[in-house]
This record gives sequence, C-alpha cells and structure tokens, in this order.
Amino acid sequence: MLIAKEYISPLAHELIKRNPLAECAYNEVANSILKNVTPGHDIFILNNTEKNCNGVVPVKERCYQILENEYGWYREKPLSYFHDNAQKGGPIDVYKEFCQGGNVLYAGLEFETGNISSAHRSMNKLCIGIAKGEIEIAFLMMPIKAMSFYLTDRVSNYEELEPYFLLLDNTPFVVFGFDAEEYSTDVPLLPKGKDGMSPRTIRKWQDR
Amino acid sequence: MLIAKEYISPLAHELIKRNPLAECAYNEVANSILKNVTPGHDIFILNNTEKNCNGVVPVKERCYQILENEYGWYREKPLSYFHDNAQKGGPIDVYKEFCQGGNVLYAGLEFETGNISSAHRSMNKLCIGIAKGEIEIAFLMMPIKAMSFYLTDRVSNYEELEPYFLLLDNTPFVVFGFDAEEYSTDVPLLPKGKDGMSPRTIRKWQDR
Repeated sequence: MLIAKEYISPLAHELIKRNPLAECAYNEVANSILKNVTPGHDIFILNNTEKNCNGVVPVKERCYQILENEYGWYREKPLSYFHDNAQKGGPIDVYKEFCQGGNVLYAGLEFETGNISSAHRSMNKLCIGIAKGEIEIAFLMMPIKAMSFYLTDRVSNYEELEPYFLLLDNTPFVVFGFDAEEYSTDVPLLPKGKDGMSPRTIRKWQDR
Repeated sequence: MLIAKEYISPLAHELIKRNPLAECAYNEVANSILKNVTPGHDIFILNNTEKNCNGVVPVKERCYQILENEYGWYREKPLSYFHDNAQKGGPIDVYKEFCQGGNVLYAGLEFETGNISSAHRSMNKLCIGIAKGEIEIAFLMMPIKAMSFYLTDRVSNYEELEPYFLLLDNTPFVVFGFDAEEYSTDVPLLPKGKDGMSPRTIRKWQDR
C-alpha cells in the first residue's frame, strides 16, 4: 500500500529526528504499510466491485504479520495502568521495545478497524500509554476515505479523525492514512470478519 | 438524582473558584442532576425489575429540559471549527453563553447516552471546543456503573471512562457521575428509544 496522508505531531517529529530508535520504529511501521501487497503482485490492488465489498481485517493482519515476522513486534501488550481492571482498557495491539547501546524506547501501534467512535477510543488509549510512560511513541494507522469506501461498512477513515489530531499536538504521535496503489474488479475480494484468516500463532507479548 | 462521583480538572477547579460565571455554569449543570426527580416524588426512583429495563434517553431529556426551561441553555450548538464539514463532528449537545458586567463565558455540556467508544468521542469533541476557544468550560454527565445496570444495554458509565480522565488534566473539564436516590420495582419503567417522549419544541441554538 502507499502512505497517502500522514500526521506527525511536533513532539513525534523531534523524537524521530534526534532518536535513532524512534526513527527505526517509524520506519518499521511505515514499511508494514509499504510492504503490504497483493499476493503475486508488487503493489496492493483492492477489489472495487461495489461499496463495502472487502473486509478490513485481512489488511490489518498483513501489516501486523510484517511487523511480527520481519521486525519482531509483539501483539497485545497490556498497559499496567489498566492492569487491575482489564475491562477499563484493552491491551495495545502491537508493541515493541527498541534497544541499542543501553537506550530503550517503547513503541505502540493500533490499526483501527472499528467505527469512528472506536477510533477515538484507540487514540485515547495510546495517549494514556504515553501519559503513563508505558509507551514513548504512538502510531495509529487507518485507511483514507477513498479506500474505506470499499472496506467493511462504517470502518473509520483518516479524514474523519483528522479534525481531532490537534488534541495530539503535545503527544509523540503519528497517524498514517494508507491507500491501495490500484483498484480493480479482477483481484479476489478480501473476506469479511475472521473468515478466510488462516489459523496461525500470533506473537503475544504474554508468551514471549 | 444525586451526584455520586465527580471529576473536576485542576483548571476547572481554578476557573470555578475565581470566575463567578464558571461557578454559575457549574451550579446550573449540577442542579439539572439534583432537580431531576421522578414525577410526584422529590427524589429520583429507578425501576430495578431487571438488567437494562429502563431507557436512558428520558433521564437525559429531563436534565436538558431543566437546563433549557429554568436556566436558558440552548441545544445543538455547532462548533464553527467543524462548520465546513458537519460529518466530521456534530454540534455540542447543550450550550450557554454566560454574561455579566461585560464578562462572557461559553459553556458546553454532553449527556452521554451511547457506548464507551461514543463517550470517548464526546469527550474529545468537548476538548476540541476548548482547544479552539469555542467553549471555555466543558461538562460531561454519565450514570455511575450501579445505575447503568438498569439502563439501556451497553450505555457507558462513569467508572468505564474514569481511567481516561487524566487526559483532561490540562483542560477545564468537569465530569459528573449521577445515580438514582432509590431503586424500586414499584415505579414505572422509563421507555427506551424515543418512545414515550412527549413531542415538544426544543430550544435549538440556530432558532434563537
């Protein structure tokens, strides 16, 4: 896929510029989008037969698998702030501790597959992780509006959340709006729900 | 009803202490909870026949009517920040401009009747209003968990959102968690959806 739109908060910009670990985190997340291609092609081609014809979960799964398999990220990192009451907040979707020469950086990422309300919750959860020092840079990735038209009904898109990014100005936060390189009726539809996901073991933080 | 739990951010605390208009706004919103009673009684009695047996909308409507009729608040104040694209954010539920001796204060309120994701969106919308200077103090009101058990399924409650209040520490923000004074199987159920709402003209900002 390609990165069509991007928000980088002033704090994230500074951090990525001066901290090689943050730069590495940024590049790995960006690569999980760029390397997410249609099998047998070197670009991502989305079926555009009709509105809402593809599921969004397979798109997310490919990004997450790239992060797990190529870069060693983990799934489902609980925030200890929520620890005594898990129903108050779920784990961070994908997480990695970057280490080099005694320096450490904690990075967290969510790929939003829910509606716009759910995107607000994901954004706030990542902000809590930052506020409590459990992550030091946060990434959120969402389809842009044009792409979301062909994904699961009511999945939130970059443009919908964009007016709220000013709430992130004092947080090291990056939001990626991704898009398919091409649209075609000749590629297979992406299955909805969890149908068609091949069973596999995900790299959970708790099993590390 | 009674105010069972309350979050007052440090900035809201300062504002309410030093600005009589902010104090007035706080008192009017608090009174819309305290004066919300079961017809024919001087307290609020909630039917507790079974889980989710009451609708939450009638509770909201009584609070809003008190604010409109007794205190002159308006409904549905659009944020001009969203003005060029209404789908990016709806209006503030209830709004009042307080004026005295040349001083003015803009206050906005939301009564959350949606699920927990929706509560995050309401909270963020009020924060946007503050960040853009369109409101100067924000209020959010929600049932506490014990009361929400007998209201519409999955309505969000104070305790669910509470872990996120630290995101409001630098915003003049007040959250009220209200509760019924009594529970009984002898009072009428509150209707769900918009059923049973008597048709009435609400005081919309655009019609002022």
